[in-house]
Amino acid sequence: MISKQMQQEIAGSSAIRAMFLEGKEMAKQVGAENVYDFSLGNPMTPVPEQYNQAIIDAVRTENSLELHGYMDNAGYLETRQAVAENLNQRFGTEFEGSHIVMTVGAAGALNVVFKTILDPGDEVLALAPYFGEYRGYVANHQGILREVKPDTATFQPDLEDLQAKITPRTKGLIINNPVNPTGVIYSEATIQNIASILEEKQKEYGHEIYLVSDEPYRELVYDGNTVPFLTKYYDNTFVTYSFSKSLSIPGERIGYIAVSPCMADCSQAVQGLSVANRILGFVNAPSLMQKALVKSMDARTDVDYYDRNRRLIYGKLTELGFTCVKPQGAFYLFIQSPEPEEKKFVEAAKKHHILLVGGSSFSCPGYVRLAYCVSYEMIERSLPAFEKLAEEYRRN
Amino acid sequence: MISKQMQQEIAGSSAIRAMFLEGKEMAKQVGAENVYDFSLGNPMTPVPEQYNQAIIDAVRTENSLELHGYMDNAGYLETRQAVAENLNQRFGTEFEGSHIVMTVGAAGALNVVFKTILDPGDEVLALAPYFGEYRGYVANHQGILREVKPDTATFQPDLEDLQAKITPRTKGLIINNPVNPTGVIYSEATIQNIASILEEKQKEYGHEIYLVSDEPYRELVYDGNTVPFLTKYYDNTFVTYSFSKSLSIPGERIGYIAVSPCMADCSQAVQGLSVANRILGFVNAPSLMQKALVKSMDARTDVDYYDRNRRLIYGKLTELGFTCVKPQGAFYLFIQSPEPEEKKFVEAAKKHHILLVGGSSFSCPGYVRLAYCVSYEMIERSLPAFEKLAEEYRRN
Repeated sequence: MISKQMQQEIAGSSAIRAMFLEGKEMAKQVGAENVYDFSLGNPMTPVPEQYNQAIIDAVRTENSLELHGYMDNAGYLETRQAVAENLNQRFGTEFEGSHIVMTVGAAGALNVVFKTILDPGDEVLALAPYFGEYRGYVANHQGILREVKPDTATFQPDLEDLQAKITPRTKGLIINNPVNPTGVIYSEATIQNIASILEEKQKEYGHEIYLVSDEPYRELVYDGNTVPFLTKYYDNTFVTYSFSKSLSIPGERIGYIAVSPCMADCSQAVQGLSVANRILGFVNAPSLMQKALVKSMDARTDVDYYDRNRRLIYGKLTELGFTCVKPQGAFYLFIQSPEPEEKKFVEAAKKHHILLVGGSSFSCPGYVRLAYCVSYEMIERSLPAFEKLAEEYRRN
Repeated sequence: MISKQMQQEIAGSSAIRAMFLEGKEMAKQVGAENVYDFSLGNPMTPVPEQYNQAIIDAVRTENSLELHGYMDNAGYLETRQAVAENLNQRFGTEFEGSHIVMTVGAAGALNVVFKTILDPGDEVLALAPYFGEYRGYVANHQGILREVKPDTATFQPDLEDLQAKITPRTKGLIINNPVNPTGVIYSEATIQNIASILEEKQKEYGHEIYLVSDEPYRELVYDGNTVPFLTKYYDNTFVTYSFSKSLSIPGERIGYIAVSPCMADCSQAVQGLSVANRILGFVNAPSLMQKALVKSMDARTDVDYYDRNRRLIYGKLTELGFTCVKPQGAFYLFIQSPEPEEKKFVEAAKKHHILLVGGSSFSCPGYVRLAYCVSYEMIERSLPAFEKLAEEYRRN
């Protein structure tokens, strides 16, 4: 038998799989075009041509052994410098290549950070609602994840609860901005307040509390919103990033960690990240993708596509009487369940062939997540189903 | 401060880094052409053109969102099937696509296997001399690595010691074939004996003991040697593989796990590997590389190049009176230190600008590893230095 731990993980994963299979079964019965699957957060806008051309150019022109070969575990210096310069131009930061570690996506980056900072029993805080995978990422390195409860009025974090949950064992706070599953952007005021709280607690306990920022949705923002760049507000910050969404390349597994140049023992931290990259088995971020990135750092997928979807579905759902905070970024809506038990609402939606994910997966029961990274046409086709669903709840 | 664990890891890693920096410093002083760096196991033969063409074709012809997108955590079915068919043709096995999980290289594959099979405190055996990274891979998942002592007469495993080291907590045995650092291939008789021992101990303890095979050097074999394919000898086997060496693409991080179709609870094991791929942050093997592999599964780098190096350096060193087992595969020589303390021999070699790695790194003191994945010309240039080194030891 495989490990007891993994048997539990498999059991935990089976709900998502069950939903996936149910969707497939539904498609067989009523036709794929009549199933409205809003359950998956998969990018679906085109990959920028500039990026594909950069791949072909690299394969054609670079020495192929260098192109596909080992490099420093932190990545090619050329790529690290390109990331640093790009951030400096956009955010007025002062990164050098030596502050950047290339990683196997943001999921890889987060595991590398936690491996670097956590000793067994150390605590990491997460602000509910949060991406459920964080639980596994912290547990992988024998850390303990503690939840800060949600403020469902604004979905900005509950700062009082954050303050109360910090203990002498707290080693990190993970922030996702813009937030999956709400689409909210934590404001500059929020970030400043978080920074003050952490500064104070660092002094009180006499050790670093790291801010670990997970920013795969940083470029997916609407209505001229911007996402505060965290190293400008708090020194002990690791910013983790993935190009999965901005370039629509989630399968390629490429991202980075930017370490604040003002972090305590910054160079030791970077060394730790490199070692973690190696011993966790990532070794390095895929080499060809690193090379292609140098020439497509500013390429972007079609963010307007998601925005058009957002306006359609948000407009319609609020018109129908559903309650949800207006998303400023990412590609999710977080809808309040019209009945206390979200599971029943998920089931009711399913009867209309609408697939949603319960908020309990994000430690925020009573809500459901709708991912609008789907085709505009599917949203249009789904609207009558939402009307019927709303009608049902109006009748009851 | 980063974690105490990571501070120790950094201290452990600094020896390799020190050697690297020393080599650079040496190159400055005496010229790069007069430094003979045999310390790194980095592939250096050309990447097959077929593989680069497969990348360009995939970028040109495939839907780019599918090409760079998410797929099942186990990989594209098309790639998994291509791996299965390729193994079946070459080894007479009976894999289906569902028995293959694509991974971020062999290092990723090993971590995924250990995450799947280990509960805290479970033991994994390794046969000395072995690749030092295994210690980290097992420790990552709270397992305990136990060493089986080397048989330095043949460098086949010491089977008596293997038998003695299996306890009720033993969950796995890791085998590297051909072996880094000796270049020895474990023979069919060795494999059959290991299988019998494990079968017997499984019965005695009433639970599975998994054989975890690490085979990045499988294709690098000489003199018509072959490497026994382990699923044919023992049912509870995971074969982990990387294309790093056979295609000279170590930077791309692409490999797989082949799960014996006869493994106990085989489909649960595969499910566990998929979940582990996800929660460890690999998520999936890089997607473009998976697609390119489908069309270059049989491509090979120039193995004869390594063979030519092997014959030159092995011939010369034995002629000079050094003792080492003749390598049958991989690209390493494991040389007996002519004085009891290998560190002194490493230092003596360094005075002649020859860089070698001490056997203690492989849990086999009294030896040094020489990696001959270097240019033929560098080996030629190094021979006078080896002559002087041998001369020194003859005089003493």
